Amino acid sequence: MPTELTDATTLIDHHCHGVVDEPLDRSRFAALLSEGGGAMHAEIDPADTPLGLAVRAICAPVLDLEPHVSFDTYLARRNTLADADTRLLAASGLGHLLIDTGYRTATIRDPTAMAELGSFRTDEIVRIEAVAESVFAEVGAADFLAAFEHELRYRCQGAVGLKSIVAYRAGFDLDPRRPISLDLRRSLNRWRTGHRLDDPVLLRHCLHVGIEVSADENLPLQLHTGFGDADIELWRSDPTRFTSWLRRAPADARFCFLHCWPYHREAAFLAAVFPSVYFDTGEVNTHGALGYNSILAESMEVAPFGKLLYSSDAFGLSELYLIASTQYRAALARILMGWWRDGRCSPADTVRITHMISSANASRLYGLPAEGSDEQ
Amino acid sequence: MPTELTDATTLIDHHCHGVVDEPLDRSRFAALLSEGGGAMHAEIDPADTPLGLAVRAICAPVLDLEPHVSFDTYLARRNTLADADTRLLAASGLGHLLIDTGYRTATIRDPTAMAELGSFRTDEIVRIEAVAESVFAEVGAADFLAAFEHELRYRCQGAVGLKSIVAYRAGFDLDPRRPISLDLRRSLNRWRTGHRLDDPVLLRHCLHVGIEVSADENLPLQLHTGFGDADIELWRSDPTRFTSWLRRAPADARFCFLHCWPYHREAAFLAAVFPSVYFDTGEVNTHGALGYNSILAESMEVAPFGKLLYSSDAFGLSELYLIASTQYRAALARILMGWWRDGRCSPADTVRITHMISSANASRLYGLPAEGSDEQ
Amino acid sequence: MPTELTDATTLIDHHCHGVVDEPLDRSRFAALLSEGGGAMHAEIDPADTPLGLAVRAICAPVLDLEPHVSFDTYLARRNTLADADTRLLAASGLGHLLIDTGYRTATIRDPTAMAELGSFRTDEIVRIEAVAESVFAEVGAADFLAAFEHELRYRCQGAVGLKSIVAYRAGFDLDPRRPISLDLRRSLNRWRTGHRLDDPVLLRHCLHVGIEVSADENLPLQLHTGFGDADIELWRSDPTRFTSWLRRAPADARFCFLHCWPYHREAAFLAAVFPSVYFDTGEVNTHGALGYNSILAESMEVAPFGKLLYSSDAFGLSELYLIASTQYRAALARILMGWWRDGRCSPADTVRITHMISSANASRLYGLPAEGSDEQ
Repeated sequence: MPTELTDATTLIDHHCHGVVDEPLDRSRFAALLSEGGGAMHAEIDPADTPLGLAVRAICAPVLDLEPHVSFDTYLARRNTLADADTRLLAASGLGHLLIDTGYRTATIRDPTAMAELGSFRTDEIVRIEAVAESVFAEVGAADFLAAFEHELRYRCQGAVGLKSIVAYRAGFDLDPRRPISLDLRRSLNRWRTGHRLDDPVLLRHCLHVGIEVSADENLPLQLHTGFGDADIELWRSDPTRFTSWLRRAPADARFCFLHCWPYHREAAFLAAVFPSVYFDTGEVNTHGALGYNSILAESMEVAPFGKLLYSSDAFGLSELYLIASTQYRAALARILMGWWRDGRCSPADTVRITHMISSANASRLYGLPAEGSDEQ
Repeated sequence: MPTELTDATTLIDHHCHGVVDEPLDRSRFAALLSEGGGAMHAEIDPADTPLGLAVRAICAPVLDLEPHVSFDTYLARRNTLADADTRLLAASGLGHLLIDTGYRTATIRDPTAMAELGSFRTDEIVRIEAVAESVFAEVGAADFLAAFEHELRYRCQGAVGLKSIVAYRAGFDLDPRRPISLDLRRSLNRWRTGHRLDDPVLLRHCLHVGIEVSADENLPLQLHTGFGDADIELWRSDPTRFTSWLRRAPADARFCFLHCWPYHREAAFLAAVFPSVYFDTGEVNTHGALGYNSILAESMEVAPFGKLLYSSDAFGLSELYLIASTQYRAALARILMGWWRDGRCSPADTVRITHMISSANASRLYGLPAEGSDEQ
Repeated sequence: MPTELTDATTLIDHHCHGVVDEPLDRSRFAALLSEGGGAMHAEIDPADTPLGLAVRAICAPVLDLEPHVSFDTYLARRNTLADADTRLLAASGLGHLLIDTGYRTATIRDPTAMAELGSFRTDEIVRIEAVAESVFAEVGAADFLAAFEHELRYRCQGAVGLKSIVAYRAGFDLDPRRPISLDLRRSLNRWRTGHRLDDPVLLRHCLHVGIEVSADENLPLQLHTGFGDADIELWRSDPTRFTSWLRRAPADARFCFLHCWPYHREAAFLAAVFPSVYFDTGEVNTHGALGYNSILAESMEVAPFGKLLYSSDAFGLSELYLIASTQYRAALARILMGWWRDGRCSPADTVRITHMISSANASRLYGLPAEGSDEQ
C-alpha cells in the first residue's frame, strides 16, 4: 500500500485556469513560472526557484528527458513536441477541472478547449469582479446595478461556482454591511471606463450580490486568499479578517478560501468552526512545491477532513498541473503514512481520507459526478 | 531512555475544565469533539477529523477495544462502562489540575467532583468576565464597580489564578489605559441584564482590576489566545497585540497566554523577551493532535524552557485529557530525542527540560506543591 | 558529498555587530544570550534556553571542553582563554562581515577591530536612525534637514549599505507619502535633545532620504523585521505591511528584510514577487538555533534562491557567530539533501544553491568581491 496510496486517485482540481496555446520562448516561459512576472528577470534567473527545480525534476521525464536536465534543454524539447501539453496533463491524473474564466482569458484556452486537450471534464467558475467590469464597460454607471445582477445570474446558469478577488482589491476587512444607495451612486459616478473595480463600496456591493446568488443557486463562492502577486497587500488577505462576513452570510452560502498560504492555518481554523467554510492549499504546491509536505501537514492539523479540497491554481503552463498533482500526492501519502506508522489511523482511514480530499469533497460541494475512488 | 523519556512524568494540567457526568448520545459526544459544535453535523461527520482519529486510536484500547474501531463502536462501549472516565483519566498521568470554573459550569463536574473522579489534586482558576457578569446580574449598574472588585478578591482567596477571555470579547488591541469614570458610567448604564460583557470600556476596567488582584495576590493571569470557536475574530487575538498592556503592568504581575496556535511563535517571542510572560500550546494537542509534533517544536524555537507550560484545555470529555497527554508526551520526546541525536543536548538536559515543562514551571508559577520528577 | 555539502563554504555574514572586548561575568554573559536582557534573570535561568544548550553543545569543544559541560564550567574556561574569541570566530568559516555600527557601539569592537580579531574582511552598514539622532544632537531642529542628508551621504561613502529600524520605532504601516514641510517643522520642534527618534513624521522623512541615497549610491537598504526585543510591537513589523513603500520606491532601490521570523514566509513572498526585495532569517539561527531546520525550510518554500541571504545578527559574543554558522550549515544541508533524496534536484543544484545563499547573493547585492565557492 505505502507508495501507492495516492498514486491512482483521480483528482478534481477545483480551481485552475487554462493553458496557453503557442510555443513559448525562454522569457515568456520563465515569466509564467514566477508570480513576479517578467520584471524579475533583470534581477535573478527565474529558473533558480523551487518551481524551476520541480520543472526539471518532475516534468522532464514525461518529455523523455533525464531528470534535472538544464532549463534550456527542457524548454527546447518542450517546443519541439506537438503533444507536450497532452503528455503533461495526462500524467497529472485529473478527472475534472473547475476553471476560473475571469483572468487574462484572451491568452489561454477556455474550458471547452481544455477538455479537448486533456482526458477530463471541465466546468466553469465565474469571477464576480470580471463580470462587474465587463458589465460596466457595456452599460456604464446609470444601469450598472440591475445589469450586473442580471448578468451574474445569467453567467452562473452555466457554471458550478463563483469567485471573488476582493482580497486583492480591498482586503478582507471590508465593511460587511450592505452599502447604502447614496454611497453606491457616488462610487459608480466616480468609476471611469477602462479602470478596474477597486472602489470598496462597489466591491462590497458586488460581493453581497455574489453571496446571494451563491446561496440562491447553491453555488460555492471561492475567495482568493493569501499568496498572489505584487498586486496584493498580503496581510489584508488573512481569512480571519473575513469573520464578520461569514457570520452574516445566509445559512445556505458556502465559502471556499483558495491558496491560503501563509494563512492556511487560519483558513483551517475557520473550516473547523464554521460549517460553511471550505479551503485548499493550491498554488503553493507549485510555487512552493519542494516545501509542500509541511504546508499540507499544517493545513491538516485542525481541519475536518471533509473541508479540505485539492487545487493547483495552474495558469498558462501544463507543467503546473503535473507539479501540483505530483507534490500533492507525495505530501498526502507522507502525512497519512506517518499517521499510520505512529498508530494514529488505520489503512482504511488513509484510503478514505485520500479519496475525500482528492475528489469526494469537491464532488459534494460543487454537485459534480463522483470520481471513482480508485483504491487498491 | 528513548521512549521512556516522557512516559512516566506526572503532568500538571494548568488549564482545563470539568467533564460531563452523564451518558452521551452520538450527537452530543460529537459536538463536544468539535469547536464548531452541533451546527457542523449537517455539513460533515464530526468524527472525520484528526481528533476523531485520535479518539479511536488512543482511547479505544483503554476501554479494551482494538485501536481504530468505528466511532459508533467506541461510543457504545463508552456508554456501557461505568468507569470509562476513571480509566481515561487514570491513563493520562495527571498529578494536578487547575480548573477554569467560568464556562458552562452547570453542565460539567466542579473541581471537587473532578478530584474524586481522578487520582489527582485540583485547584480553581477564576474567570474575570464570568465574575463580572454574575455580579452585574446581582447588583446592577449602580453598585457594580465596588461589588465586582470585592467579589473578585473574595473568589481569588480560594483560587490559584485568574483568567480573562478579553481576546474573545474585544481582541487584544484594547486601549491599555484605565477608562475614565464618565465612560465607565455610560457603559454600565448601557449594559442590560442577561447580556454578556462585551463593552470595550468595561472589559478594560475589569482586566485592569484583574491585573491588580493578580499582582497583589501573586496569582498568575491566564489569557485566552488564538484557537477558539466561531465566537472569536482570530487575528485580534494575536498576543503581540497585547504588548502595550505587558509594558504597563505592575512588575509583579505574571501573564500566561493559553493555547496560542496559530500564534504560538508570537507567544514564544513574548515569553523570550518579557520576564512576566508564560504560555502553553494546549487545545491543539487535542483538536490538532496528529500535527502536534510540529506545533510543539515551533513553540520551543525561542522560548526559555522555564516559560512553557502544559495544558489540555479539555472540556466535557475525559478523552481530551488522555489525547492531550499522549500527544504531548510523544511530541516532547520526539523533539528532545532529536536534539540529543543531533548532539545538541545531553540526556540529563532532556530529563530536566521534560520535568520543567511537564510540571515544575507550573508548580513554581502557581505556587503548587512540586510533582515528583519521576525520571528513570 | 552528504555532510560535506555546506561545511566548507565560506560565508558572507551580511548583518552582524561587533563582539565585546572584556571578560564577562555570568550575569553579563547571560544577558547577552537573551533578548530579554538582564531583567529575565530574576525569573528564570537564562542558560535554560535553546541558545544556552547550543553554547554548551557547539562552542564548548572549540574551547577544548566536552560538549554539554555546565554553563558555569564553560564560562570559566572562556574567561581563562586569551584566544576564545579568535577560536570561535575561526571555527565559523566566515569570509566577510557587514557590520551594523549603529547600536550600542561604545560597548563592542568596531569593523576594523573585528577584522583584526578574525581572518575575514569587514565592511560597514550605516543605520539611518542613529545618524539622525547624532545629527540632531549636534545641530538641533533648525538645521536638521540639510545636515541629516549631508551626513547620511557622507557616512555612506565608506559603507556598503544602509539600515533602518523603523519597524521598531513606528511599525511598517507608516504612511508611505513624503511628509509635508509644515508637519516636519512641527515634529522637529517637538523633538527634545537626548530623546530617541520615534516621531512617525520624522521617521518617514528619514526613511525617504535613506531610500533615495540607497537608490542613488546603489547601496541596499536593510530593514529590521520581526524578532527583536521587548521594545518592538511585533505584529507591526510584518513586512507585508511595507508593501506600499515597496511599490513607490525608485526602480533601482534594493531592500533586504532582516531576521523576519515569525514573518519569514511573508518576507519570502515579497522576495518572490518584488524584484527589489531580498531577505534573510538571521538571529533565529542563534536564539532559535535548535529549531532552525524548519525555519530555514519555510523561508525556502517560495523564495527564488537568488533572494535569500545569510546572516547571524550576532551581537557581543563570538559564540553567536559560531552557533549561527553551524546551525545554518546543518539546516541547509538537511534541506538540500532531502530534496536530492526525493529526486527533486541534482547534486550540482545543491552545490550551486549552497554557494548562492552562503555568499554569492550577498556578494552580488552589495558589490563585494566574490568568495571562492569552495565546492568539493
